[in-house]
Amino acid sequence: MADNKKMVEEITSMEVDFAKWYTDVVKKAELCDYSSVKGCVILRPYGYAIWENIQHILDTKLKETNHENVAMPLFIPESLLQKEKDHIAGFAPEVAWVTHGGSEELQERLCVRPTSETLFCDHYSNIIKSYRDLPKLYNQWCSVVRWEKTTRPFLRTREFFWQEGHTMHETAEEAIAETKQMLDIYADFCENSLAMPVLKGQKTNKEKFAGAEATYCIEAMMHDGKALQAGTSHYFGDGFAKAFDVVFQNRENKPQYPHQTSWGVSTRLIGAIIMTHGDDNGLVLPPAVAPIQVVVVPVAQHKEGVIEKATELKERLAKDFRVKLDCSDNSPGWKFAEYEMKGVPLRIEIGPKDIEKNQCVVVRRDNREKVFVSLDELESRVPELLKAVHDGLFEKALQNRERRTYTALTLDEMIQIANEKSGFIKAMWCGDDECEAKLKEIAGVSSRCIPYQQEHLSDVCVCCGKPAKEMVYWGKAY
Amino acid sequence: MADNKKMVEEITSMEVDFAKWYTDVVKKAELCDYSSVKGCVILRPYGYAIWENIQHILDTKLKETNHENVAMPLFIPESLLQKEKDHIAGFAPEVAWVTHGGSEELQERLCVRPTSETLFCDHYSNIIKSYRDLPKLYNQWCSVVRWEKTTRPFLRTREFFWQEGHTMHETAEEAIAETKQMLDIYADFCENSLAMPVLKGQKTNKEKFAGAEATYCIEAMMHDGKALQAGTSHYFGDGFAKAFDVVFQNRENKPQYPHQTSWGVSTRLIGAIIMTHGDDNGLVLPPAVAPIQVVVVPVAQHKEGVIEKATELKERLAKDFRVKLDCSDNSPGWKFAEYEMKGVPLRIEIGPKDIEKNQCVVVRRDNREKVFVSLDELESRVPELLKAVHDGLFEKALQNRERRTYTALTLDEMIQIANEKSGFIKAMWCGDDECEAKLKEIAGVSSRCIPYQQEHLSDVCVCCGKPAKEMVYWGKAY
Repeated sequence: MADNKKMVEEITSMEVDFAKWYTDVVKKAELCDYSSVKGCVILRPYGYAIWENIQHILDTKLKETNHENVAMPLFIPESLLQKEKDHIAGFAPEVAWVTHGGSEELQERLCVRPTSETLFCDHYSNIIKSYRDLPKLYNQWCSVVRWEKTTRPFLRTREFFWQEGHTMHETAEEAIAETKQMLDIYADFCENSLAMPVLKGQKTNKEKFAGAEATYCIEAMMHDGKALQAGTSHYFGDGFAKAFDVVFQNRENKPQYPHQTSWGVSTRLIGAIIMTHGDDNGLVLPPAVAPIQVVVVPVAQHKEGVIEKATELKERLAKDFRVKLDCSDNSPGWKFAEYEMKGVPLRIEIGPKDIEKNQCVVVRRDNREKVFVSLDELESRVPELLKAVHDGLFEKALQNRERRTYTALTLDEMIQIANEKSGFIKAMWCGDDECEAKLKEIAGVSSRCIPYQQEHLSDVCVCCGKPAKEMVYWGKAY
Repeated sequence: MADNKKMVEEITSMEVDFAKWYTDVVKKAELCDYSSVKGCVILRPYGYAIWENIQHILDTKLKETNHENVAMPLFIPESLLQKEKDHIAGFAPEVAWVTHGGSEELQERLCVRPTSETLFCDHYSNIIKSYRDLPKLYNQWCSVVRWEKTTRPFLRTREFFWQEGHTMHETAEEAIAETKQMLDIYADFCENSLAMPVLKGQKTNKEKFAGAEATYCIEAMMHDGKALQAGTSHYFGDGFAKAFDVVFQNRENKPQYPHQTSWGVSTRLIGAIIMTHGDDNGLVLPPAVAPIQVVVVPVAQHKEGVIEKATELKERLAKDFRVKLDCSDNSPGWKFAEYEMKGVPLRIEIGPKDIEKNQCVVVRRDNREKVFVSLDELESRVPELLKAVHDGLFEKALQNRERRTYTALTLDEMIQIANEKSGFIKAMWCGDDECEAKLKEIAGVSSRCIPYQQEHLSDVCVCCGKPAKEMVYWGKAY
């Protein structure tokens, strides 16, 4: 245990400095590294493997729901970006501009895509002619660039990876149904694959996406009580279609504009995983996306038969799980700490005494509970224990959210909670932009979402006292 | 068949205008579309699905050989790109420069990566400390940008997709072995997954990669006799390591520079597939990467039981293959032409008479051969027939290459063959840059490779008559 302690001391405690803890974990678990380009990080093998697992699960769901992958260019000509006015206003301050190709100055500047609505619309204007061409359900996996001032690994970087879906539909109803379907897919994914409870809701007018009619979102709560927007799904109406002249012949043989959606999740989700599940021993990974689901650590590996038995266990499990066997020269204690730091959901220890008893020790990463498992039951117990880790993580995160969710009925209450606590604050709202701005100014909270699941807390707006329209979640966000 | 003919007439014949045939196929098979950014194309769902299949097969092989995926930034600071002199000299004329972030001018220009040796070396200098950290076997799947003057879909575009592997090793021997291993993996992939025969060899000094000590390549021959470089693998020695100060403590506890490789294949391979296997009816896809391996077309689908039976066949095959059932209103003839255009390897036709006889008709795309298959044997005959299509494609491509490979013993012969024929020309070479330049100038051919499989054609260089060092393949290339 001496070794173990030493490793643990290398990261800052969460309670002492959550931000420092976060960057320590990112660095020491080898998820990413800083690069020579300010604000851009390198996704290292362990971090990228989490992203690959996320991609694999989500991409399968996208294909099951009839979405098709495409690849649009990296660049957007300035004139194309400017076609939709709200959109350019929202993105112009934060795009990177290419001005030269080789030694020649370009006739028109190109921005590196911050998002690709404009490119998809331009393409759609060429390929959508008739209602028979609809719906178009396209998605792409790529990186996008936004020239942010302050950056943090996974949470906010100048280049980040995501998927962006862009769809076109015959009717508004269909497009709205798609927008909501995608939000449901994201919520299911967060809860069932990332063990991360999320609130589903709609953004206020002020917080919606540049150019959208409505933005739906899932909001997660991090360990420290701050909110993280984990995914968004936008309904555009036919605004972009008009700006980009996307027209189809409808069933009555008349020209009509299609209705549009876009939706995305990004490598931010990795930041959310870290801050939802991590602890003072490092990363804790939900089994569905963990690059290593089970690590096998031989104990007293110099003794006869130990490495052989450990190898046998590894091979038996490798048929169904992502397993690593560590037979390196490091001490078992060092290995325990190392794979705890890396958040591996289950550790299997096997030594001479275990072999005698035809058993192994399985340790859960989430609560460090040890169980003895008969080697005869290995294949059935491991999936049960992985499921238990998933459920344990979800439950813990849900409890954290519930414990840190407050209700404010008056402005004074709101200010007090915002000052003294960190978490979600439920409060009624009149729907007015001014009240939203005022709450930001005097309580320091922004609207997170108008949740699907409404509650009637009172009849009046927490800010102005006029009749309330809906309940809103407020909080501080990453 | 009237419908069928009409579709076919829409593409230019290969023999009339091969370049026009190529762009017709790319467009009509819906592989890609032009974008509003000059020189950049959109990969449409059908084209991108081929790339996804290529990625899946190759990525599995890379992981089996212990390579790990990472993601480096999109941008390279100008000072970093300049660290290795040959490298910057090779790439500076064709990079895109980012000069502004939002409205602010950047302190240092950033180029959009044309390739990522410099970024990997910069990262390696931070993470490689000891021989225990070696080898590092990293790969990334991404797009890169080269500001080409003339572009063609898949063959040469300003942005293109690829994988780039970058590895570091303790010794030169290990690095050279890695370089050659990767070339073997590429060659196996081209031959066994793309049905495309390739020559393995080494590039001449003049043709090698900017900054490399040696470049190995695989060269394929297209239907028209022109060569296409299908993949490259570079050995760098320790040149980049020195330029980027990548140093490790070796087993004798002394500082040492590691030895490096890089290697890549790109979406060019899709261009190679088109030009190797395509015919006047359109695309012909090798089964391993075809997005649709089998299309089921019901005949007289209004008759009772036909669509039900066709659906049943589709579902039986969908367990093991990528299958599409087309029950649309279009005529069978239209569908036959459509899926021929899209290069689907097998077409299954099923109508009332077939159902009576408990059989279906299977048509191979490569030679249009029809076979009647008992419905009881469907699951065993389909993989056999897919294998037959693969073998048929490989054989046809090999015959084309053999028929179009010539031998030149004198300069006059070389000039005559180069003028009258299109194909590979085998000829002896003294190893001198000047002879290579002269052959380019007067015969219009460039060296394709110094093949692994050498032949002794004569004792003297085809150009200068001095003693020959090796046999070289010459030709005109895409």
